[in-house]
Amino acid sequence: MKLLEERIIKDGRVEGTDILKVDSFLNHQIDVELFNEIGKEFKRLYADKGITKILTIEASGIGIACIAAQYFNVPVVFAKKTESRNLDQETYESEVYSFTKQKSYIIRVSKRYIQENDKILVIDDFLANGKAALGLKDIIDQAGATLEGIGIVIEKTFQKGGQLLRQDGIRVDSLARVKAMENGQVIFEN
Amino acid sequence: MKLLEERIIKDGRVEGTDILKVDSFLNHQIDVELFNEIGKEFKRLYADKGITKILTIEASGIGIACIAAQYFNVPVVFAKKTESRNLDQETYESEVYSFTKQKSYIIRVSKRYIQENDKILVIDDFLANGKAALGLKDIIDQAGATLEGIGIVIEKTFQKGGQLLRQDGIRVDSLARVKAMENGQVIFEN
Repeated sequence: MKLLEERIIKDGRVEGTDILKVDSFLNHQIDVELFNEIGKEFKRLYADKGITKILTIEASGIGIACIAAQYFNVPVVFAKKTESRNLDQETYESEVYSFTKQKSYIIRVSKRYIQENDKILVIDDFLANGKAALGLKDIIDQAGATLEGIGIVIEKTFQKGGQLLRQDGIRVDSLARVKAMENGQVIFEN
Repeated sequence: MKLLEERIIKDGRVEGTDILKVDSFLNHQIDVELFNEIGKEFKRLYADKGITKILTIEASGIGIACIAAQYFNVPVVFAKKTESRNLDQETYESEVYSFTKQKSYIIRVSKRYIQENDKILVIDDFLANGKAALGLKDIIDQAGATLEGIGIVIEKTFQKGGQLLRQDGIRVDSLARVKAMENGQVIFEN
């Protein structure tokens, strides 16, 4: 997605060879106009899939998922990361390892909000090691629902998440694919 | 807001006298169509305030803030709750006590994303004890920006947050004001 790549080049900040900071428009400050273009693109890609629900994970996936959901006319469900007294006891759970935080955490989705007949589009901001996406897939599998695909804003193709998911037969659509970061510059695939 | 009160009566679940679960449409599964009506209402209330930025806090505020921001044509900034390796060192911080989790946490906003000339609308899903809202106000004060008001989806008026904020001279607009919960029923103000 040209607009997104241009924005990453303009406003992304590279630290070392593996950290890409896009907190001016994606995951701290949010450019809602850009999110609308991202939402339209996900809709174009999944227009014929009969998506019934968008699933994401807190926190930075929520904004993208909500804006995109407007084009699908479906609800969003976001997996929760922390144990909350106010969440249903009746939940699907999966364990996810975070390389950023160097620890595992549990993600949970109430059984009320994913049904066997759901056709689900997973949306998230980043794909790196793929652990969060695999956790969401695990939850969708537990519910007996169908994972139609995973829509990612920025994939780091030099990390192994995308490969793992695609090897598993999962459709993954990443709107920007970062091959490498060198000397403060972002290099995209293709 | 009539539509919201009706939805709370229809789909909210009361536990005891102080827990109102609205996770079927507000803070786990998200009804994006309802969020659009909420966004329009916040815009109506703050149309003449020259809002330049919407500030919220992860996680459940993000979806509402993003949808509402479409009516204001302004960016969203969400305060982060956890220490993340990928966040700027240059942040405004405030400490917030969570009654739900019975512990304090730090919220952070990068100094890049709030400026002195910003006129800020804070948006959040719930107002109970007001600790999160006060933390966000503290951050806005540190930045020297202007807090134009706080837009809340559901206020529990039997808890003291709304009173504390209004006593402080802060404008608070809550779209549903829950006075009490008795025998599984929600009773609204007015």
